Amino acid sequence: MPPLLETFLPWLDIAGLSVFAASGALAAARKRLDFVGAAFFALITATGGGTLRDVLIDAPVFWMQDSTPVILCLAVALCAWAIPLRWWPERALEWFDAVGLAAYAVYGAAKALHYGMAPISAATAGIVTACIGGVIRDITAGVPSILMRHELYVTAALVAAGLFTALTVAGLAAPLPALAGAITGFIVRAAAIKWRLSLPPHQGH
Amino acid sequence: MPPLLETFLPWLDIAGLSVFAASGALAAARKRLDFVGAAFFALITATGGGTLRDVLIDAPVFWMQDSTPVILCLAVALCAWAIPLRWWPERALEWFDAVGLAAYAVYGAAKALHYGMAPISAATAGIVTACIGGVIRDITAGVPSILMRHELYVTAALVAAGLFTALTVAGLAAPLPALAGAITGFIVRAAAIKWRLSLPPHQGH
Amino acid sequence: MPPLLETFLPWLDIAGLSVFAASGALAAARKRLDFVGAAFFALITATGGGTLRDVLIDAPVFWMQDSTPVILCLAVALCAWAIPLRWWPERALEWFDAVGLAAYAVYGAAKALHYGMAPISAATAGIVTACIGGVIRDITAGVPSILMRHELYVTAALVAAGLFTALTVAGLAAPLPALAGAITGFIVRAAAIKWRLSLPPHQGH
Repeated sequence: MPPLLETFLPWLDIAGLSVFAASGALAAARKRLDFVGAAFFALITATGGGTLRDVLIDAPVFWMQDSTPVILCLAVALCAWAIPLRWWPERALEWFDAVGLAAYAVYGAAKALHYGMAPISAATAGIVTACIGGVIRDITAGVPSILMRHELYVTAALVAAGLFTALTVAGLAAPLPALAGAITGFIVRAAAIKWRLSLPPHQGH
Repeated sequence: MPPLLETFLPWLDIAGLSVFAASGALAAARKRLDFVGAAFFALITATGGGTLRDVLIDAPVFWMQDSTPVILCLAVALCAWAIPLRWWPERALEWFDAVGLAAYAVYGAAKALHYGMAPISAATAGIVTACIGGVIRDITAGVPSILMRHELYVTAALVAAGLFTALTVAGLAAPLPALAGAITGFIVRAAAIKWRLSLPPHQGH
Repeated sequence: MPPLLETFLPWLDIAGLSVFAASGALAAARKRLDFVGAAFFALITATGGGTLRDVLIDAPVFWMQDSTPVILCLAVALCAWAIPLRWWPERALEWFDAVGLAAYAVYGAAKALHYGMAPISAATAGIVTACIGGVIRDITAGVPSILMRHELYVTAALVAAGLFTALTVAGLAAPLPALAGAITGFIVRAAAIKWRLSLPPHQGH
């Protein structure tokens, strides 16, 4: 597992961190916060999931011993802030969030497996930690949490973390489970954004 | 203390986990989420309090090394989801929540004492961790948190955790403090649900 | 660093804990909660930031081994509760919050540095843990989070934690960086409360 954590997975981590930071800065820009507020939103959105993940698996919190993740968040927030909102593609925030969701679901499950957690627990930790950044962003900004939007959101994280964990436990060679999980999870979420796909809701009576 | 943790208390843990999971799945069903969303709500409602408890006392997070709690949550969510809402008793969500509140207040305090925390801190940790699952459920679902409903909620957790801790510190034999705390705490909360009992509110001027 | 943590900084900790507890109890009184609810709000507001700080730096959670912080919160909540709302100065909650913000930003950064965290990470941990108590209070009470009020809030925490960390890394003698950081941070926040100062918001288009 260590070679896996050392080759492809760090890119998932950096990708997840960057796009979640961008989605947090965009959410703050829409609420017309100042730059410091936007950078704060970028930071809590981007680090929230990974902080919970590291707490769950009793790893040192990833942005405390080394400041690179903090600096990366600030750089992304600065770029996202400087670009006028009308230059962004429609639903840019959700597309960033989709990349972050797939990347963090796989990376969270991989790090949990690496720290010796049970496979089902590791996949679950991947799902929860991928979803929680967006939830923190939405609740702190005072908008309905992304979980309530009746789209495939948790489901996409479940596909990403579940496929990665199943293929890893099945013994597939190192970058394949991570690639398969992240790409499939992103496709599910992308389909949900593009065509508003959803699973059948509860009947409600 | 270990024999205590090995006999009656695990049942409090399982009871609390199951009923909080049911209350989370019901809250999601009322918001017409799909099954994956409901299972996610069941999971964060049921594991939220215990995760915070284990973080506070520096114990390994209870659902990471062993997947049983995750599987139990999913099974409960599936059952809660499959049953039509009209079959549930009125205020079913609140009754489940009441059982979970009393069970987790006592179990949280017991586990904190077992890990060597100061008695007042242990009782406080029991109260906070019993209340936080419902708060996470409500805030994520976008409904006013149960703490704001002007009923005896924190008070019931206080009675459960406080009575358990006081009787344990006083030296009462093993299952008695847990039984007394959980039952009395549940009665206080049940009375509040049934007759909308409350303490006098702040005068407000 | 230990002599620093042993002389001036504990007072910052006690000051921050007390005034955040007062702001939590006041927020609960305005929502007309009962005394137990107000004490609970005081507790989660006052301990929320420090709990996250200790989790981030992997220190034992400060209110678990020793019950003094819990008892202090309850005593403050009792006083805040007993005093009629009309006796409080206008915006009392925000003034308490301002003292807590400056005190916790510096104390959080100092404790993180003391535990060996990287300077930028330590300052960031100070900012996040100073802001989070107020966010927990507001979101749980169902009012818009203080971050969204378009005032200098995160900025004041940034000034406090940043100035403290920069002066400490520059080698200034022990109580000076803490004094300079806490006082300057409080002045920034006080100016924002008094004259509704703010940084330029995002252009919004």
